[in-house]
Amino acid sequence: MAAPDGATPATPTVRRADGRTPDQLRSISITRGWSNQAEGSALIEFGNTRVLCTASLTSGVPRWLKGEGKGWVTAEYAMLPRATNTRSDRESVKGKIGGRTHEISRLIGRSLRSIIDTKALGENTIVLDCDVLQADGGTRTAAITGAYVALADAIRYAKDKKLIPAGAKPLIDTVAAVSVGIIDGVPMLDLPYVEDVRAETDMNVVVTGSGKFVEVQGTAEGAPFDRAELDALLDLALMGTAQLTQIQLDTLKEAAGA
Amino acid sequence: MAAPDGATPATPTVRRADGRTPDQLRSISITRGWSNQAEGSALIEFGNTRVLCTASLTSGVPRWLKGEGKGWVTAEYAMLPRATNTRSDRESVKGKIGGRTHEISRLIGRSLRSIIDTKALGENTIVLDCDVLQADGGTRTAAITGAYVALADAIRYAKDKKLIPAGAKPLIDTVAAVSVGIIDGVPMLDLPYVEDVRAETDMNVVVTGSGKFVEVQGTAEGAPFDRAELDALLDLALMGTAQLTQIQLDTLKEAAGA
Amino acid sequence: MAAPDGATPATPTVRRADGRTPDQLRSISITRGWSNQAEGSALIEFGNTRVLCTASLTSGVPRWLKGEGKGWVTAEYAMLPRATNTRSDRESVKGKIGGRTHEISRLIGRSLRSIIDTKALGENTIVLDCDVLQADGGTRTAAITGAYVALADAIRYAKDKKLIPAGAKPLIDTVAAVSVGIIDGVPMLDLPYVEDVRAETDMNVVVTGSGKFVEVQGTAEGAPFDRAELDALLDLALMGTAQLTQIQLDTLKEAAGA
Amino acid sequence: MAAPDGATPATPTVRRADGRTPDQLRSISITRGWSNQAEGSALIEFGNTRVLCTASLTSGVPRWLKGEGKGWVTAEYAMLPRATNTRSDRESVKGKIGGRTHEISRLIGRSLRSIIDTKALGENTIVLDCDVLQADGGTRTAAITGAYVALADAIRYAKDKKLIPAGAKPLIDTVAAVSVGIIDGVPMLDLPYVEDVRAETDMNVVVTGSGKFVEVQGTAEGAPFDRAELDALLDLALMGTAQLTQIQLDTLKEAAGA
Amino acid sequence: MAAPDGATPATPTVRRADGRTPDQLRSISITRGWSNQAEGSALIEFGNTRVLCTASLTSGVPRWLKGEGKGWVTAEYAMLPRATNTRSDRESVKGKIGGRTHEISRLIGRSLRSIIDTKALGENTIVLDCDVLQADGGTRTAAITGAYVALADAIRYAKDKKLIPAGAKPLIDTVAAVSVGIIDGVPMLDLPYVEDVRAETDMNVVVTGSGKFVEVQGTAEGAPFDRAELDALLDLALMGTAQLTQIQLDTLKEAAGA
Amino acid sequence: MAAPDGATPATPTVRRADGRTPDQLRSISITRGWSNQAEGSALIEFGNTRVLCTASLTSGVPRWLKGEGKGWVTAEYAMLPRATNTRSDRESVKGKIGGRTHEISRLIGRSLRSIIDTKALGENTIVLDCDVLQADGGTRTAAITGAYVALADAIRYAKDKKLIPAGAKPLIDTVAAVSVGIIDGVPMLDLPYVEDVRAETDMNVVVTGSGKFVEVQGTAEGAPFDRAELDALLDLALMGTAQLTQIQLDTLKEAAGA
Repeated sequence: MAAPDGATPATPTVRRADGRTPDQLRSISITRGWSNQAEGSALIEFGNTRVLCTASLTSGVPRWLKGEGKGWVTAEYAMLPRATNTRSDRESVKGKIGGRTHEISRLIGRSLRSIIDTKALGENTIVLDCDVLQADGGTRTAAITGAYVALADAIRYAKDKKLIPAGAKPLIDTVAAVSVGIIDGVPMLDLPYVEDVRAETDMNVVVTGSGKFVEVQGTAEGAPFDRAELDALLDLALMGTAQLTQIQLDTLKEAAGA
Repeated sequence: MAAPDGATPATPTVRRADGRTPDQLRSISITRGWSNQAEGSALIEFGNTRVLCTASLTSGVPRWLKGEGKGWVTAEYAMLPRATNTRSDRESVKGKIGGRTHEISRLIGRSLRSIIDTKALGENTIVLDCDVLQADGGTRTAAITGAYVALADAIRYAKDKKLIPAGAKPLIDTVAAVSVGIIDGVPMLDLPYVEDVRAETDMNVVVTGSGKFVEVQGTAEGAPFDRAELDALLDLALMGTAQLTQIQLDTLKEAAGA
Repeated sequence: MAAPDGATPATPTVRRADGRTPDQLRSISITRGWSNQAEGSALIEFGNTRVLCTASLTSGVPRWLKGEGKGWVTAEYAMLPRATNTRSDRESVKGKIGGRTHEISRLIGRSLRSIIDTKALGENTIVLDCDVLQADGGTRTAAITGAYVALADAIRYAKDKKLIPAGAKPLIDTVAAVSVGIIDGVPMLDLPYVEDVRAETDMNVVVTGSGKFVEVQGTAEGAPFDRAELDALLDLALMGTAQLTQIQLDTLKEAAGA
Repeated sequence: MAAPDGATPATPTVRRADGRTPDQLRSISITRGWSNQAEGSALIEFGNTRVLCTASLTSGVPRWLKGEGKGWVTAEYAMLPRATNTRSDRESVKGKIGGRTHEISRLIGRSLRSIIDTKALGENTIVLDCDVLQADGGTRTAAITGAYVALADAIRYAKDKKLIPAGAKPLIDTVAAVSVGIIDGVPMLDLPYVEDVRAETDMNVVVTGSGKFVEVQGTAEGAPFDRAELDALLDLALMGTAQLTQIQLDTLKEAAGA
Repeated sequence: MAAPDGATPATPTVRRADGRTPDQLRSISITRGWSNQAEGSALIEFGNTRVLCTASLTSGVPRWLKGEGKGWVTAEYAMLPRATNTRSDRESVKGKIGGRTHEISRLIGRSLRSIIDTKALGENTIVLDCDVLQADGGTRTAAITGAYVALADAIRYAKDKKLIPAGAKPLIDTVAAVSVGIIDGVPMLDLPYVEDVRAETDMNVVVTGSGKFVEVQGTAEGAPFDRAELDALLDLALMGTAQLTQIQLDTLKEAAGA
Repeated sequence: MAAPDGATPATPTVRRADGRTPDQLRSISITRGWSNQAEGSALIEFGNTRVLCTASLTSGVPRWLKGEGKGWVTAEYAMLPRATNTRSDRESVKGKIGGRTHEISRLIGRSLRSIIDTKALGENTIVLDCDVLQADGGTRTAAITGAYVALADAIRYAKDKKLIPAGAKPLIDTVAAVSVGIIDGVPMLDLPYVEDVRAETDMNVVVTGSGKFVEVQGTAEGAPFDRAELDALLDLALMGTAQLTQIQLDTLKEAAGA
């Protein structure tokens, strides 16, 4: 996002700890087909954040949806115990899932369902598992962005196997997500952990390929934010998700992975 | 909110099922001091939604905060099994807390912490319990709005009991919340259940008395939403929360309850 | 319970902390139809003890009862975390239900089933939820007494909706409950919390409208009790439940609540 | 209990399925010291009901009791999965303890505490584990009766080991329990399973060696019961527990087990 | 196992704490039909280790096995809280089953299935419950050895009741188990607790009546072991299980029941 | 491992589905330092089986080990839900850990502790997390083999940071593991999933670098096995673990990290 000629960039001199400008994404990498077991999969990296996304497709739907001729897409998010700088206890060992995990799993599920035509999916279920192997901020947005690639491949698989009619179009758009935040008064794109903990305001934005909002989740971590700050963050998020959308499309054009 | 003279209201002819205009709150009632056990309490009603909010104050803070000279505010949200039109199983019986409950508890906690100066609170803990006795949409926003009143009274109690120095000001602002949504293309304020299930987009907005955002949580339930729709919803939310703030202030001016 | 002429009342001069005589109930209030969601409901108050009782009616019965042409009535009791003077952790958060909660839920269920003709109820299930909003002793007895009112209204609803034939009589009696105890050697009726903790013996008695026992649960908290003390407590309990029965009947004669 | 001369026994001709008269206990057997691990133990049999009771003594008390110079006695009741005629799932496998188990554990604990002087026990804890190896009715009453023997031996052990001063008398009485019920209108003592399921009224009574009540828990399983029936049941229970007390005393006079 | 004439026993002078030679089993006792509830049962004792084994037979199989014309045999192992020298918390109270319990339950199940022809068993399920009443080392091997007796009786019962055709032979062999270990360099058979905790290497060996291995589970508790040590332990185990097999066969020749 | 000249290989004509000879390991790969968060880490691959092993080092030991001047090493094993061919429910969602998971976690922990001098480790704790990202048989043996590399690097880290004195030697040997089994009568090394499910006997063998056994876990899946078969399997396992040891040593000679 070079500043257009003649414009005055808002924050000309700010350099982030990792050398990026405020409006720059981290290095993004998507390894499509990382798993040889799942119907669709992607190992996605936003800098040092690494999330393994798999899409598991099965015939049939949960009981409460039976007989309606519609499919179902859901998601589960989790973190390996040593994905983070200090080890966390496993939720399986604790015997219960924490609020944060629940919240993110639900967010990923809603985000992916927003670009699915469940009628066209037919009575099939796709579960998206997003497991954070290494965490450095932005794990939920990386998960959504990677899950889209796994989902697209699972649907391709379903068509190949004639589980979905060839002409059906269950995917009605693409979807990607990015975090934005205000740090020392400067709106910034795609926060790594060191920035995330310092952000006064933190926002996760999920956007379709056509540029519409699916989720806007802004939280004042430090001080409440005003309308102008909100607008600046939304601008950054729309720019970042547009770039992520392009990377998703490029990835899906290539032949699938190992 | 009568439309100002000469202005053209956005949706002049829309009447909602309960007779309200799109920009009108439901009947709001706050019964301060409903409980004789808690240090602060309020039974808040947004139309037929009834939430009992209690604030429990104790000396001391959780272990991870000890010795920092700061207080702690947290919240728990729950719904009685027959608060809703059909009975739900109790989470205590199921042996685990659902994702929605976790998510809302965390939202209420963050919202109330946003207007607290934890240094001024000293090493005291306040737990806000928000139990939905009857649900008709907007339970989380009613909970935040009512919890503020309970919190304010618990702090008043702490000052009376000299648990907090007389001059300390732990409350740095007020906070209120409201839901907004787009139904049949029309942005509407404070959705009851029948509107909530039909909304294409649903947003919960938490705003301080000074008019700044604490939380903006917008979700496309049906179709993704664009920037103009987002702006219209934020306008409504700011208007609604300003009215709720006034009701909170009026309530707290009166002598406390039964 | 005026002492009969010529008799010497056992404890002529005893006055309780709240001004009552030993054989006097607290102020009893039943708000019928407090909830607009449940098929039957009542907010019952025994002094400062407040319990919200709802009756949820559904067609069908649990699997183990299917095909026998009988209905089912069950109950769940719970307490809000700050119903009491100090806050208790939620059982949903702890992930398990405590022994006391289990014990009381079972007692309420048995008590209400004792006055139900399950054949006449047909294959319908009624769940009675008794949630203590404010606790000051006697919560289980208030719950039973209030649950009867909610149950009666749910059955009335079932008849109105033709879920039960007009001529069927599932309710074969009424039921009410009260606590009694011995404090400083004096048998007393309807103990508030301050008396309950001091009682040497504590007994909960559940009695039908026709004056027969459904449950007698006496526990020596301090010293074991003898036959004469047991008899004195049963006398008090029969008198108290007779008064509660009358209040129930009066309440159900009026038009149902808001 | 021979009927006194000249009296007309209430039910002269009734013979029970196992040949007993209505007022006769089943064959009672107590094997003291059945376990070589516990500080006190007893395998108690009421007919075919077999309960292994162990008393585990440890120095110190639970945190909430520390520093008060008092001891603590508590109990846990459980049933082996195939103690009954059909196998039940283990509560450990289900991951939670059922209401019935909780209720009985609490009853046993209260019963044994009623005859303990916790001051004289000093800061020691005794846990009574009552595990039903074979169930044929009356498991909770057998458990209480057997637990007393285990408890008495654990206290003897504590004195031998000088954990309690030689002169201290933590046991202030003995305690035993029995079930009684009304079957086909006849009050009967010590019900085996086949009678228990047919009983109209079922009562568990816990009585001290000095003949005072510790617990009276009467439940109308079929029809509510009147005062005369209650009295007849209490008579039977007092007679049965007097016999059980004698068996306990005889057992404890002998040299301890294996 | 007298050393053959002329041979030099490996460890001529070693005497164990309980007086046994290194290659000697503890006193073994099997009380067949200890329970009057289960289709098969045995109380087995290896010295002071006592395990109650019951076999519960039901028609039908778990869902995942339906329609295959095969039966199912599974096992659950547990320990009473005071089976050991110090009391352990109940797994039902902790709300979860520990790794050790899981591991042993699975071992017992696999061991018994190894000698079952599931086709010949038909669509019947047998659950083996092995509850340790008193523990002194070798509880898992006693459980396997006793469970075989209970299993054999449950199958006999099934034939008597015509649940299995008279000519079917679901039992294709017998199975028994023993522990062996190296203590102070000497291989020893059937370790009690005091030896078990000192063993450098500990091995549980499950062997069929025909002398073949079903399970070999050797663990270096102290120092890793070499091939020669492994061979010596296997020799001892084969000898011990042959003796246990004979005791099982003798027990099953007698008439069943208490 | 070509058969030495002149020797007659045991099974000259057997070719496995993946082209290997019976005594050949799959392709083994160890990516040391795969994680940038953990003190030691390795992504290990046995063919298509991929396990991420991390070693988390913290000062201090569990409470029960405090003050003994010894360290602690433990392990947790888990599988991602779609590591396998069909998706499994998460153990965190089920709220409990399965028996297989427990069993393998314990095996890994014991195996690694066998080559640790806990005195030399000092009061430090190392937790080995072994998460299966993709499963194709042999996950537990890959986990042990990879965990050794992570452990060695965590100890190197501890020395670099002076948490362990420079001269201390907490690692007293290396350790590796491999599975062996009998398929169609032929002993085979390192079974992938397709062979594992067909194996009559399945054995996991854990061996130190010096060639001694740490664990021998042999299970008859189909028919019991005899001594000769056991010997053949142990021969194969010793050969395979020797090769794995060499790969571990080679890996640790190289520079660490991504």
